[in-house]
Amino acid sequence: MDYNTCFNQALETIKQEDRYRVFNALERDARFPRSCTNGREVISWCGVDYLGLTQHPTLKQAFCDNLQQYGMGAGGTRNIGGTHVKHVELETRLSQLHQQQATLLFTSGYVTNQTALSTLGKLIPDLVVFSDGDNHMSIIEGIRESRCHKVIVKHNDMADLEQKLAEFPLSQPKIIVFEAVYSMSGDFAPLTQIIALAKKYHALSYADEVHATGVYGLNGGGLTEAEGVASQIDFIQGTLGKSFGLMGGYLCGSAASIDAIRLMGNGFIFTTSLPPALCATVINVLDYLKLHPEHQQYLHTLVNHLKQRLREAKLPLMPSASQIIPVWVGNPTHCKNIANTLMNEYGIYIQTINYPTVRKGEERLRISPTALHTFEQADQLVAALATLYKNCVHYST
Amino acid sequence: MDYNTCFNQALETIKQEDRYRVFNALERDARFPRSCTNGREVISWCGVDYLGLTQHPTLKQAFCDNLQQYGMGAGGTRNIGGTHVKHVELETRLSQLHQQQATLLFTSGYVTNQTALSTLGKLIPDLVVFSDGDNHMSIIEGIRESRCHKVIVKHNDMADLEQKLAEFPLSQPKIIVFEAVYSMSGDFAPLTQIIALAKKYHALSYADEVHATGVYGLNGGGLTEAEGVASQIDFIQGTLGKSFGLMGGYLCGSAASIDAIRLMGNGFIFTTSLPPALCATVINVLDYLKLHPEHQQYLHTLVNHLKQRLREAKLPLMPSASQIIPVWVGNPTHCKNIANTLMNEYGIYIQTINYPTVRKGEERLRISPTALHTFEQADQLVAALATLYKNCVHYST
Repeated sequence: MDYNTCFNQALETIKQEDRYRVFNALERDARFPRSCTNGREVISWCGVDYLGLTQHPTLKQAFCDNLQQYGMGAGGTRNIGGTHVKHVELETRLSQLHQQQATLLFTSGYVTNQTALSTLGKLIPDLVVFSDGDNHMSIIEGIRESRCHKVIVKHNDMADLEQKLAEFPLSQPKIIVFEAVYSMSGDFAPLTQIIALAKKYHALSYADEVHATGVYGLNGGGLTEAEGVASQIDFIQGTLGKSFGLMGGYLCGSAASIDAIRLMGNGFIFTTSLPPALCATVINVLDYLKLHPEHQQYLHTLVNHLKQRLREAKLPLMPSASQIIPVWVGNPTHCKNIANTLMNEYGIYIQTINYPTVRKGEERLRISPTALHTFEQADQLVAALATLYKNCVHYST
Repeated sequence: MDYNTCFNQALETIKQEDRYRVFNALERDARFPRSCTNGREVISWCGVDYLGLTQHPTLKQAFCDNLQQYGMGAGGTRNIGGTHVKHVELETRLSQLHQQQATLLFTSGYVTNQTALSTLGKLIPDLVVFSDGDNHMSIIEGIRESRCHKVIVKHNDMADLEQKLAEFPLSQPKIIVFEAVYSMSGDFAPLTQIIALAKKYHALSYADEVHATGVYGLNGGGLTEAEGVASQIDFIQGTLGKSFGLMGGYLCGSAASIDAIRLMGNGFIFTTSLPPALCATVINVLDYLKLHPEHQQYLHTLVNHLKQRLREAKLPLMPSASQIIPVWVGNPTHCKNIANTLMNEYGIYIQTINYPTVRKGEERLRISPTALHTFEQADQLVAALATLYKNCVHYST
């Protein structure tokens, strides 16, 4: 048995489909979005540090102070010696932020979705999951592991959702799973319509807010806060790794549901908990954001400017309601060529988005501005893209 | 549909079986293992910060310096803007530590096992997994998701392993998955025998070293380093969250296998990468450990002392080769009562280990000394346990 043949064959297939990924290692530091990779200076446009807080001097100092006080790692699982008072305090703060009864911290947003959804499948007999067709892989994996009957709903199509909900009896347990802001299209979910359908058909609602927290809502509570509907959603899932600038994930919900997931979710139980100093710093971030709406406000102004400039340059901007700005390519090879040219000739780093992150044939460039990018950098980006797309015969809208 | 009934019923069942878990929130800080919980001072004996590095002043300062330089979070996934030069450097260092060609970092040890094993199942057609009966839940979940045929091997029983391997043709792809040091019994795996059987039956070998790195091996490379067999194992899995004092996990293996898992493992692809400053600090930890074998040496001396004292006190010490010291109880209610009395009357915190962490009826107290515990604290622990067990008619060995 030559095992390396299996691995090499898989690699060969990936290379033939032109989706072999080479990671660009950045020397990311306080100069962000200016950064170095492979010895050359670039402006990075593809991170999810939306508010630029990873590099904020005050918050970095707060993390240092927390490290000095609480130490580095948690030194245990939540059950076995690894619950710190700062875990509990942060969970309380996140419950308040999202107007929910209780919160559970996880090691990542991915683990949150995977564990929460698979555990809900164990807790609720005969649960049917209605999942938006554009949902993130962590949601897909969570539903798969739940072994629940799964109904894929056409992306953001409320008629399709209602039709599919109506096919089941009212007494059948149901959950509608969706993203508040979709990661690869930048679409908003129609929150009030989903809530109305959930009520009408006695379904639970589960909102993934990972791209929305920090960016929307006066307190950074995401789209559900911005639209004033947080308390009407059954589960709100979020991350500490994007706008909040750190690492980790969480789920908010009713006291009983969160307690049951706490006691039965393997991905929660059997893992070292988040560093207490990190949790303490997230609390500092939440406090900071209350006093400093200017980062969020600036980001939205920049995003509007960038979208306007892209439209003016007649670039194939995909419809996006949010800070996520996808530009269509539709072919993995062209996508890679455009990204390589941007990097090598313009010093602009935008990662190609290809399969399995999006479906094959839906390849795109995804521009993610942060509050640290300047208007000048945005204009340079649009100029570079305009030149490249003009010279490239192979793209379609 | 009253969903809260489902959650409350699950909670009721757990409470009836006396395995409802209340997490003890510690004010863990530089005074560790002295700590505060619920307003009283305790000595904590149940963490996995084996070398006590989470509280080391030099390393905490190194983390601060790294934070000042690189910022807080990674700001992206490994593929999309979140690969930092420090991720790459740490992966190279871990490959060297474990004498393997390549390494991949994950967000936790749990995610490492889950993603690696489920992805190996996709990569190797008809793979049969031989899994030790005492393997950790992360391994069990990874195998479950792999959808591979799974053969449970009696814990550390090499005759059983060989008999089960021999039931399959030589050409059938196989992998033997085991822990170098078992988390709940403290047993060592018989590494050389497993390696010999893997060779004889053309099977891959996969060693979970999470409780062994740092504690064994001159460079902290775990039991495979200590026994000089690291290069003969196909996959070595480890954690950054126990002896190394931080958070995260990793998998080492051949260049082709690691590259394939990098490109196909959902739990690796779709998640924000570890904070660069954290990775830089792990490199500092590895450098530090090379120059400072005294923490490891002291831990082993303390463990031997503690085991000797437990034996002298005729306490039901379970056989353990390692730093993990389980003391038998065998009943969830008695286990909880002993732990509560230790906490309330003696100021000693040892978490009860119950289902689902161990099988029902195998409940135990697990003592995890660290290099920060003193001999005096060990003697006080044994005295408290001896008093408690003498007064308790309900335990069996």
